[in-house]
Amino acid sequence: MAAWSERLAGVRGVLLDISGVLYDGGEGGGAAIAGSVEAVARLKRSRLKVRFCTNESQKSRADLVGLLRRLGFDVSEGEVTAPAPAACLILKQRGLRPHLLVHDGVRSEFDQIDTSNPNCVVIADAGEDFSYRNMNKAFQVLMELENPVLFSLGKGRYYKETSGLMLDVGPYMKALEYACGIEAEVVGKPSPEFFKSALQEMGVEAHEAIMIGDDIVGDVGGAQQYGMRALQVRTGKFR
Amino acid sequence: MAAWSERLAGVRGVLLDISGVLYDGGEGGGAAIAGSVEAVARLKRSRLKVRFCTNESQKSRADLVGLLRRLGFDVSEGEVTAPAPAACLILKQRGLRPHLLVHDGVRSEFDQIDTSNPNCVVIADAGEDFSYRNMNKAFQVLMELENPVLFSLGKGRYYKETSGLMLDVGPYMKALEYACGIEAEVVGKPSPEFFKSALQEMGVEAHEAIMIGDDIVGDVGGAQQYGMRALQVRTGKFR
Repeated sequence: MAAWSERLAGVRGVLLDISGVLYDGGEGGGAAIAGSVEAVARLKRSRLKVRFCTNESQKSRADLVGLLRRLGFDVSEGEVTAPAPAACLILKQRGLRPHLLVHDGVRSEFDQIDTSNPNCVVIADAGEDFSYRNMNKAFQVLMELENPVLFSLGKGRYYKETSGLMLDVGPYMKALEYACGIEAEVVGKPSPEFFKSALQEMGVEAHEAIMIGDDIVGDVGGAQQYGMRALQVRTGKFR
Repeated sequence: MAAWSERLAGVRGVLLDISGVLYDGGEGGGAAIAGSVEAVARLKRSRLKVRFCTNESQKSRADLVGLLRRLGFDVSEGEVTAPAPAACLILKQRGLRPHLLVHDGVRSEFDQIDTSNPNCVVIADAGEDFSYRNMNKAFQVLMELENPVLFSLGKGRYYKETSGLMLDVGPYMKALEYACGIEAEVVGKPSPEFFKSALQEMGVEAHEAIMIGDDIVGDVGGAQQYGMRALQVRTGKFR
């Protein structure tokens, strides 16, 4: 294995995943992962540009940043790339009106979006709102469309909370894909467009950036496919 | 297209799907499909052997037969091949103790099965019991096993109730497959073992049998792959 100095040669920007890297969610908001508050502080004191690139889709960016700040992290809303705002941009560009199957915590991100007479479905990590009734409703909306369009905010298999492993949005995306015979459009990691927008915000090229995450597909695979370097932490969902 | 007499030459046995062919489920048990009660009666008066081959996994065979009889069908429990009893046979043969994610209506079929300290998961069409909590529990059981084994009673995408299309077990099977990185074993149509046992009960060879169903994959594709003829009705989930 190359020495660290070689592996990091030319790196100007660091993209940090949040859940499983900075903290594990759970009761009372969750807990910071040991050493992570100080690691972020050191990165920010360094010559490197730092941005947070998350597939978090249960909370609005404002709520997520509020939680992280309470846990001691130095982070502001403008430093976070998250899938819900990215989805809103796509919906507006394409004139789509979504049926939302999302957690109440993230619904405010869609306040400016017309959801009447839906012509697509957006699913996010809805947690307990992934009831049979809600899944069936999303399925029925898709089956009534001539060209069913399904957006999934990320496609993670699971994540780790302090109480254990929890199903993420990916399995439910697969369920709807199979039920309707369609393929979802993923908004979030590992989508190239998502990495692109995070890098643009940071003003750094792909070959100058490294992604640090706990998901071998969403973080590591996605970043490498986009020409970035990547590093998998041994916290969070790492097994 | 060949004439009917040619297409049915040599047929000695008829396998009938139930949901979407004989009746559509729904409020108050559902409703018989027009002409189906008389069609079954005529088949039974003919020289053909008749058997019912269903992926119904919300109800026990006893409850299903009771419902069909109330709707006017001439059918007895011994004439029905259903996935839950087939699954129990497999569990006993392989010494497996299931965690059950099934509808309460079918739980009695598993009365003789040891479910303590589970070393596999069985899912069936659980309807509203496909809650996030129940799915997450099944997921966690699988993730704790060294060799995760998942049985799915059928893999249908959806079925039709009188009130509309409803998600079947297949999407939830796909969700757990993706979450755990495994492949489920399907008990029920289109599994070859399932058709084999139905034909054995009827005493008819595959090339002498025709399957009549509304599911292009489970009924038609599965039967044809097993060397049977098949016919898709334009009722039930047919679109």
